[in-house]
Amino acid sequence: MQLVSFLDDGRWRPGALRGNFVAEIETGGGETVEAIQAFMHDGRVREGRTRPISDVTLGLPVPNPGKIICIGLNYREHAREGGNPIPDYPAIFLRALTSLIPHGMPLLVPEVSTQLDFEAELAVVIGARARRVAERDALGCVFGYSCFNDGSVRDFQRKSSQWTIGKNFDATGAFGPHVTTADELPRGAAGLGIRTRLNDVVMQSGDTSDMIFSIERLIAIVSDAMTLEPGDLIVTGTPSGVGYARKPPVFLKPGDVCAIEIDGIGVLRNPIAQS
Amino acid sequence: MQLVSFLDDGRWRPGALRGNFVAEIETGGGETVEAIQAFMHDGRVREGRTRPISDVTLGLPVPNPGKIICIGLNYREHAREGGNPIPDYPAIFLRALTSLIPHGMPLLVPEVSTQLDFEAELAVVIGARARRVAERDALGCVFGYSCFNDGSVRDFQRKSSQWTIGKNFDATGAFGPHVTTADELPRGAAGLGIRTRLNDVVMQSGDTSDMIFSIERLIAIVSDAMTLEPGDLIVTGTPSGVGYARKPPVFLKPGDVCAIEIDGIGVLRNPIAQS
Repeated sequence: MQLVSFLDDGRWRPGALRGNFVAEIETGGGETVEAIQAFMHDGRVREGRTRPISDVTLGLPVPNPGKIICIGLNYREHAREGGNPIPDYPAIFLRALTSLIPHGMPLLVPEVSTQLDFEAELAVVIGARARRVAERDALGCVFGYSCFNDGSVRDFQRKSSQWTIGKNFDATGAFGPHVTTADELPRGAAGLGIRTRLNDVVMQSGDTSDMIFSIERLIAIVSDAMTLEPGDLIVTGTPSGVGYARKPPVFLKPGDVCAIEIDGIGVLRNPIAQS
Repeated sequence: MQLVSFLDDGRWRPGALRGNFVAEIETGGGETVEAIQAFMHDGRVREGRTRPISDVTLGLPVPNPGKIICIGLNYREHAREGGNPIPDYPAIFLRALTSLIPHGMPLLVPEVSTQLDFEAELAVVIGARARRVAERDALGCVFGYSCFNDGSVRDFQRKSSQWTIGKNFDATGAFGPHVTTADELPRGAAGLGIRTRLNDVVMQSGDTSDMIFSIERLIAIVSDAMTLEPGDLIVTGTPSGVGYARKPPVFLKPGDVCAIEIDGIGVLRNPIAQS
């Protein structure tokens, strides 16, 4: 299934993509997290009314994730291009919801910086509560996978030792367009090509099997600290080729179009605009 | 006014403390954020039924903050005790809601560490949307102030360059017991004594006027990046005296009681238990 959220009478409701149509998912309270829980329980959801995709407004596929947990330096080549050693424990930071936009909406270059950079990432959507889960059981709490652009304001990311502010400017990250359930992908979403295309030029091209910390390992590590809840995201780091490490550096500017592609999942495309 | 949240039929509802009583606050949807917005608009709220405080369960005074924005190294002496230079831009990280407990509930020593440390902090509760607000206007978006224990798992805080994981273990932070509205405190909550008492022994004792970045400055800096929204928290850093920097180090252990006191605001007290 491809899960989306669409606007219905001022509220985000869950839907399933069916070609050029969106089928409403029937849940008790109409919340996306309930659709996720129903799918985890039954391996399916109850679908209702279908509408042409052109008639609906799609939003973040999970409208209000409880936690957006991001991993830095999780591909060897990307660690090297930034001059960082290969880590033995992942660098972890959080993004807030105000930093995210859905597929199709503009990523914003802030007023105070010209250094907005792209980062193609695989996002894991948690489907079941998990705490201190072992690596061998970790995939049992995964609902599905999506594309994520962990847009980073590089000069602010380096204003202190902590990257968080550079990762949390309004509308600098993107998530979507849909969540592909885990049953439609290789185990642990391994072996998938992941790319950034900036104005149709490939800037990053990697493979999810090149992660330093696998999906299973990340879930085990994170859940040693935090209870993972349905709808939480783990955003798993970016391959090499980011803008700041290029010679000369490449940053996103108004008028650009940035696309994150993951094989078997989809394409997350956003224009760039000035804030 | 002292804002609290209390459990009513399975939902958190806003209330105003009146001595040993809690007065229900009447809002359209019954949400705490609506009580905050009503107070920002009218300087008061509509109070309804009153109950003895002993008859209600109090929770986090803001049950579901959109963002919990934390500042590191914001008191000169604390920067020095950790061997850090005085920063010219604040270190910023986020906490997730799963890391927080209210007044009276136990802070949990994790299974995987014995280094749970206390940090007394002043929390600012945002009352009005703010984006790129100037320092001179910054206090206009503040609803009130509360006590916060930014509990930190020190070994995990230092497993990578990013502190976030050490600041986000389940039930390691505390917030409450109530939010005191800004009209009842000195401008910018300046000049307030702030202390940690561990088992009745004073471990930290500072003054909110010793912050490197004032409340106004922090709001200006953070809102250059992120839109602040009603209910968001800015947690403003801790004075010197934290456990890890003591000789010998002091960490929280099951059976301890840790209290964060801020003059004019209140006392946030939590027992410590094993996870």
